[in-house]
Amino acid sequence: MEATGSLGPGHLQPPGAAEGAAPVDRSGREAATEGSSVGFVLVHAGAGYHSESKAKEYKQVCKKACQKAIEKLQAGALAVDVVTAALIELEDSPFTNAGMGSNLNLSGDIECDASTMDGKSLNFGAVGALRGIKNPILVANKLLSEAQKGKLSAGRIPPCFLVGEGAYKWAVDHGIVPCPPDVMATKFSLSAFRKNRRKLELAEKVETEMIQTKKRREVSENTNVTASLDTVGAVVVDHAGNVAAAVSSGGLAMKHPGRVGQAAVYGCGCWAENTSGPNVYSTAVSTSGCGEHLVRTMLARECSVALQSEDAHQALLETMQKKFVRSPFLAHEDSVLGGVIVLRCCRCSLESESSLNTQALLVEFLWSHTTESMCVGYMSTQDGKAKTHISRLPPGAVAGQSLAIEGGVCRLRNPVT
Amino acid sequence: MEATGSLGPGHLQPPGAAEGAAPVDRSGREAATEGSSVGFVLVHAGAGYHSESKAKEYKQVCKKACQKAIEKLQAGALAVDVVTAALIELEDSPFTNAGMGSNLNLSGDIECDASTMDGKSLNFGAVGALRGIKNPILVANKLLSEAQKGKLSAGRIPPCFLVGEGAYKWAVDHGIVPCPPDVMATKFSLSAFRKNRRKLELAEKVETEMIQTKKRREVSENTNVTASLDTVGAVVVDHAGNVAAAVSSGGLAMKHPGRVGQAAVYGCGCWAENTSGPNVYSTAVSTSGCGEHLVRTMLARECSVALQSEDAHQALLETMQKKFVRSPFLAHEDSVLGGVIVLRCCRCSLESESSLNTQALLVEFLWSHTTESMCVGYMSTQDGKAKTHISRLPPGAVAGQSLAIEGGVCRLRNPVT
Repeated sequence: MEATGSLGPGHLQPPGAAEGAAPVDRSGREAATEGSSVGFVLVHAGAGYHSESKAKEYKQVCKKACQKAIEKLQAGALAVDVVTAALIELEDSPFTNAGMGSNLNLSGDIECDASTMDGKSLNFGAVGALRGIKNPILVANKLLSEAQKGKLSAGRIPPCFLVGEGAYKWAVDHGIVPCPPDVMATKFSLSAFRKNRRKLELAEKVETEMIQTKKRREVSENTNVTASLDTVGAVVVDHAGNVAAAVSSGGLAMKHPGRVGQAAVYGCGCWAENTSGPNVYSTAVSTSGCGEHLVRTMLARECSVALQSEDAHQALLETMQKKFVRSPFLAHEDSVLGGVIVLRCCRCSLESESSLNTQALLVEFLWSHTTESMCVGYMSTQDGKAKTHISRLPPGAVAGQSLAIEGGVCRLRNPVT
Repeated sequence: MEATGSLGPGHLQPPGAAEGAAPVDRSGREAATEGSSVGFVLVHAGAGYHSESKAKEYKQVCKKACQKAIEKLQAGALAVDVVTAALIELEDSPFTNAGMGSNLNLSGDIECDASTMDGKSLNFGAVGALRGIKNPILVANKLLSEAQKGKLSAGRIPPCFLVGEGAYKWAVDHGIVPCPPDVMATKFSLSAFRKNRRKLELAEKVETEMIQTKKRREVSENTNVTASLDTVGAVVVDHAGNVAAAVSSGGLAMKHPGRVGQAAVYGCGCWAENTSGPNVYSTAVSTSGCGEHLVRTMLARECSVALQSEDAHQALLETMQKKFVRSPFLAHEDSVLGGVIVLRCCRCSLESESSLNTQALLVEFLWSHTTESMCVGYMSTQDGKAKTHISRLPPGAVAGQSLAIEGGVCRLRNPVT
């Protein structure tokens, strides 16, 4: 077990050597945003493997998603809608495994999972194995907002989780425009599918031979299907201190039709909880990686619970080690693949120039992954542009067993208080 | 908030006035089962409303499920397979809302959810919105057991959660016999569907008029769709002290097609964890009721975690009160509907006649519900027949706000140790 970017307890700092990413200003200086709304967004374009050759595209996607979110925040939008706006940008990119350009399943179809959670109402909306909708996150957001209106006719309880054909029909009935399946597949995703299909045929041929010679499942790694686990997600805090989280995924390449991963499962794909009762911090989490590992460890909720302890960095590090890499729920897995982005915030006092105490939002944000790399972007309403970064495991570290952890902090002057 | 059947801390007792249910023998006396395997099963035919007129049928179903489980336990079967055997009996009954006779959805189709968890391996299998399979629990069990075999060809990770058409195809490919949809609908479920459809049409007409007169959602309760939430489930401990849990549901009447409830969602429908690490007790939980409420409170897992504290009765009571009825996740719900069956066990010493200490399994079991009633059955390998019971809220208690809690304890001489 190795941790990179590890910082001392209680000290959250921006990634030192973040290529192309300017460190976050920790001086407490605030931009002149009074009058316009404040907020912060952190996005990810997946924990998986991001080749140097495509680094530029991934960063560009994250940048666009951050900018979109900041525009919305400045216009006074609530966190739950901001997070959806960021996700739409991430889904629309052909480079990410979500929405457009998603992995194809075993039958050559695209089936997407997505979910979102609102820290204020604690409402949740999710879709699983959804076909023919370009932006699955829009359906998850719509499920969440429709449920907030109360019961349906004849006292029926509104659904929070829809799958398959029923989810598609509900989306179309609620004004979401369908998308022909062949539009969502890209040159890249189709080419990957054909390569993976050949690998699968070869692997099954080899396995059949092995069974005949009584050797099983010792197939060379080279015949494994390509598994770039680049699910997308975002966490947001808005001007009122509300948090929200969202996640969207095309799922594992060559998955069985109907397979649902963590992106659609409550507590596993995303989590958001405003401060209340014993919770000192508002927390928001979005996960990425191997869906089955993230479901069985309920990683989003586990991170959220842990983030209530004093030191966010230490809490996330311990959660990733004890509740993920060494989780008893994954004891038989030789490689545990995933990543998270987390955000927590609380109100703090600021001494202003007029020596009157004004309140600000203190936002701590972190990412951690056991995969080779994870692409993230972040921006506050006080920043001129988004920072993007591809976090990588240190040389020699073993994906699925080691982890990287990095983060930053920013203070937002809160014009609301 | 009222609790019925409430017992002093540390004292678990059988339901006193359980109609037709013989109290559990607490004397520590064990039947002569040495040589054959021991175990215990607790089943439920749903938290909802069980009319006196149908009480006999519900009890009969629970009895059959217990007997089936005990036969399997005596033959040395593992908990995870025993729980499946019990569920098949419960699903096959036309009186329960699972498998045969399930509620019809808005389109007049049957779509089922089911899941199972093995406390030994901590593996989980689930299906959601599954059509055309008489026993959805069989598919969940098969997903669990297939995943235990390790990776699929070409390094692919086996699925733990399948939905819709893909789940159906996977089931058929894995040897599970399909069932024509019209066979699964019963006279009773079809008649309920027709009545509910008329109520819905009426409610929508009334609501349209109300919108025109600017009154919304104050429709009379009489126009509400019938919602007997009789999901089924079971928890089991086997001769080796392994626990397992399972749950199966046809979902809410008149639900939207594709809607998935707690019975398919990890941590919400069922939970099972063998004793290990800091966990002194093995625990198993199965839930029933309004799926959306059970998902958002993750009730199965919450109960399991709470059951590690010293007093099982107190732990369950507090969990039902704080984490369900008064859960911040359901703050806006005027009525929180659900029920659980739980089991926990640990090894204890027994002074035998030869004054040599031998080990036994101490099994504590409880049920609790906020619905009008809950039908349960339980049996150990030492019992001649199953005990069944319809637990009801006390007169005057308000469903959705009050709760009932009852339970028992038994000791099983363990021939393994």
